[in-house]
Amino acid sequence: MPTIIARLTMQEGKETEALEVLRTMAAAVQSEEPGALAYVIHRPKDNPLEIVFFEAYADDAALQAHMQTPHMGTFRSAIGEFFDAPKTKIEQLERIDGFVRPELS
Amino acid sequence: MPTIIARLTMQEGKETEALEVLRTMAAAVQSEEPGALAYVIHRPKDNPLEIVFFEAYADDAALQAHMQTPHMGTFRSAIGEFFDAPKTKIEQLERIDGFVRPELS
Repeated sequence: MPTIIARLTMQEGKETEALEVLRTMAAAVQSEEPGALAYVIHRPKDNPLEIVFFEAYADDAALQAHMQTPHMGTFRSAIGEFFDAPKTKIEQLERIDGFVRPELS
Repeated sequence: MPTIIARLTMQEGKETEALEVLRTMAAAVQSEEPGALAYVIHRPKDNPLEIVFFEAYADDAALQAHMQTPHMGTFRSAIGEFFDAPKTKIEQLERIDGFVRPELS
């Protein structure tokens, strides 16, 4: 199962706009990508400008589809405007064990 | 919802034992910690020795309980034996948006 941990840094003073962009993106992924099984957005406790995504996809096709959606294009445009683009990091992981309970929705 | 991304590095040549320790730990968390809503173990595609945990707990009490379980004590002992303990990293996150579908189990 392809899994992604991605990190973005919000521009200082642009947090409100950046968080709005993130909420819009999460809603679009939820409504339009059935193969996106998790798309969770976090802030680290020790870094209020950083954003950490945890994303899991049903298969490689679902991940590829995600990268090519119109909302991903819109989101990429917003990265330059409200985030510190050079600090963006994307890490690909393979799940090897563990569980997620149905209460985590 | 308290969320953790933790990273461990397996000692080279001890991968088999390290992976067995991880499987035992995941099974214990699943069977004994109802407040652990996710405990997923991954390997990064570009670093076969690294292990990345994604953990989500129902509340702070569930996270605290996790840290004090007997299986956590056993796991901590194994870290020195099969993992490169100084490379261990634990990051605390707060979830701010997004979703997990029930298909992700």
